[in-house]
Amino acid sequence: MRTDDLVLVSVDDHVVEPPDLFDQHLPKKFRDVAPRVITKDDGTDVWVYEGQELPNIGLNAVAGRPPDEFGIEPTSFAEMRRGCYDIRARIDDMNANGVLGSMCFPSFPQFCGQLFARTEDKQVARAMLTAYNDWHIDEWCGTEPGRFIPLALPALWDPELMAAEVRRVAAKGCHAVTFSENPEKLGYPSLHNPHWDPFWTACSDEGTVVCLHIGSSSQLVMTSMEAPIDVMITLQPINIVQAAADLLWSPVLRKYPDLRFALSEGGIGWIPYFLERVDYVYEHHRAWTTQDFGDLLPSQLFRERIITCFIDDAVGLETRHHIGVDHITWECDYPHSDSTWPHSPERLAKQIVGIPDDEVDAITHLNAMRHFRFDPFAHRPRERCTVGALRAEAAGVDVSERSSGRPREKATGPVTALSLMEKAKLKSG
Amino acid sequence: MRTDDLVLVSVDDHVVEPPDLFDQHLPKKFRDVAPRVITKDDGTDVWVYEGQELPNIGLNAVAGRPPDEFGIEPTSFAEMRRGCYDIRARIDDMNANGVLGSMCFPSFPQFCGQLFARTEDKQVARAMLTAYNDWHIDEWCGTEPGRFIPLALPALWDPELMAAEVRRVAAKGCHAVTFSENPEKLGYPSLHNPHWDPFWTACSDEGTVVCLHIGSSSQLVMTSMEAPIDVMITLQPINIVQAAADLLWSPVLRKYPDLRFALSEGGIGWIPYFLERVDYVYEHHRAWTTQDFGDLLPSQLFRERIITCFIDDAVGLETRHHIGVDHITWECDYPHSDSTWPHSPERLAKQIVGIPDDEVDAITHLNAMRHFRFDPFAHRPRERCTVGALRAEAAGVDVSERSSGRPREKATGPVTALSLMEKAKLKSG
Repeated sequence: MRTDDLVLVSVDDHVVEPPDLFDQHLPKKFRDVAPRVITKDDGTDVWVYEGQELPNIGLNAVAGRPPDEFGIEPTSFAEMRRGCYDIRARIDDMNANGVLGSMCFPSFPQFCGQLFARTEDKQVARAMLTAYNDWHIDEWCGTEPGRFIPLALPALWDPELMAAEVRRVAAKGCHAVTFSENPEKLGYPSLHNPHWDPFWTACSDEGTVVCLHIGSSSQLVMTSMEAPIDVMITLQPINIVQAAADLLWSPVLRKYPDLRFALSEGGIGWIPYFLERVDYVYEHHRAWTTQDFGDLLPSQLFRERIITCFIDDAVGLETRHHIGVDHITWECDYPHSDSTWPHSPERLAKQIVGIPDDEVDAITHLNAMRHFRFDPFAHRPRERCTVGALRAEAAGVDVSERSSGRPREKATGPVTALSLMEKAKLKSG
Repeated sequence: MRTDDLVLVSVDDHVVEPPDLFDQHLPKKFRDVAPRVITKDDGTDVWVYEGQELPNIGLNAVAGRPPDEFGIEPTSFAEMRRGCYDIRARIDDMNANGVLGSMCFPSFPQFCGQLFARTEDKQVARAMLTAYNDWHIDEWCGTEPGRFIPLALPALWDPELMAAEVRRVAAKGCHAVTFSENPEKLGYPSLHNPHWDPFWTACSDEGTVVCLHIGSSSQLVMTSMEAPIDVMITLQPINIVQAAADLLWSPVLRKYPDLRFALSEGGIGWIPYFLERVDYVYEHHRAWTTQDFGDLLPSQLFRERIITCFIDDAVGLETRHHIGVDHITWECDYPHSDSTWPHSPERLAKQIVGIPDDEVDAITHLNAMRHFRFDPFAHRPRERCTVGALRAEAAGVDVSERSSGRPREKATGPVTALSLMEKAKLKSG
């Protein structure tokens, strides 16, 4: 397949929320307590909520920067590429990268809306969460129909409310919800606990995919504070293997036969090994662990119910038939530092050499469309959805690298978790 | 290749130390303080050292049991298969499984000899460690030359002493030493710290392979206490990916260009993904993380210096050329519950269909022989080293399953970390 003929739907990108997020979607009585953005004397922008300044408006939102500035966190909207937070500029950036569709994870409320779950007044929490979801669905995704897969935040503090919100947004066409790869690490019952049953029931009924993004347990895999930061960057995606194992051996998938999960930003090349391992454990240990998958093997259950995705993963594509071609999806990760933007089509083209066109189409867009009930072709004829067609619409978009303008500090040794923390401490005084 | 023609060298098995371990190898003045085995009134055997009873003489030593008894820990020598602790019976069990050579990790002193590192009187600690290594090399491995790859314990508390012991045992023909996948988790400096340089220098000089066994950080990957135990069993091998990342990004491999590590019981099927990921991280992030591998890619460094191994890993064998065929080795894991004993040749035979003979030979024995300087053919002509030849010598060995004889408890729910702990607590009173 020619690069220009690819049709790309990315199931993992990120929105940096704009300051006007809560303007249109909150009942009047909650407007005064809504999070708001303030610009401080030093020029940094911060969200303020419940008397607290929230750090990092655009954590890791480094799209368009030279790579030697990936380690400098943006601290104001002015330091970010406009596409991070402005929907029109985002569409331009998608076009420039040949990307038709995108599902965007949240930034300042954290992956599972932990910010609202921490809000003491649960009426306020619910109002904020509802407003966020309405903004996300109606404004962010609604501005240009057929370009975005909506993704809701969960009301993490109350499974019944989670269920109600899943049903409410499903009626608005949203069939994806973010959740934690390990809720126990966030202070809630584990995936294995019936606590979450109302939520699973609603997702199962509504055909809503539960998306577990890497890092959504708010726990980093940290081998050592002295370890070069590259260790952490390397391990972050594959760490989702823990959630994969939890899911597979928990009662959840077997109890809810229509429920599907997505492992967001988890990569795919490790999955053939994982599936072989779970089958080995099942065969070898089930007699004493008392696991029972009926007529299935654990690997088959995974292949039927778990949606996987990758940024750049030649080995995963080579071994795709072990993973399940009808559950593999693709992602761009805009605007984070692991993103391939604005060269995604060229990178992908190199990895799909030799893969039949129907499999390429499944992996690049058809699987995402089917699993997330996303129908871009209803809004735009397919021939206008290709990499070539979209890039033609983005002729005026400047994708050249732009420096943050901040002085680059000369590294004096390896960049480690410890050195980054010390730098942050120095800055905050 | 016919199953009977395979030659098998296992780089990861386990010895349950026999009660007479310290009888021959301690200077007289230390004999009274040596660990010793006592049999308690309830019939359990325990090692006693420094006034403490050490739990679990044969943790997970379940070879030969029916699988529904894998969860019952043996608490006495009588409950274990004789090959766990008796060298003659071990050789019989190897023969019955067609295994020519074996490297055996320790049991009661823990993977890195933590028991001796905790000993307050460091003179005593050193005497015990030296005696252990001498027993292991001279008695366990020395009984039948050409059948065992010796593996030394490190003097974890003192890098200079570690270096001296590596040199001492190398002179006796031992070119492997166990170490921790993450020494920081054991309370020592991390892999990234120059603290260990004397040890690395000695291993590099002596051609000694540093073996990092899964679990050697004494930390289990525990997603939740409520998780079925199958989650932990699934994740244990792949957890070594953390040590692999640590090693690769640390200065150690680049500073000591002759130093090699083995990832013991880590499996191999995940490695192609891992190598692609480290190269992606290097290409994508090196500009700000300041990593420098000179003319190499991180994946190339791994392929040159890291010895990998597997028990049962069809995907890893399928993708072996991404891993590096000259660094893949095989293991049996006798007598632990993940072992394929006594059917290892048959299992392996299914997975090597279509692999050229020279690659099979490399993976099954030649790589292990080269990396660990092990030369069984000097003691036994090659034609007597094959699966078929060894099994012919084991005609009288009974490999049928034998029950531990203990009443099996009916499981009342999923076996979890929590349920196992509660059962253990009940037992201990």
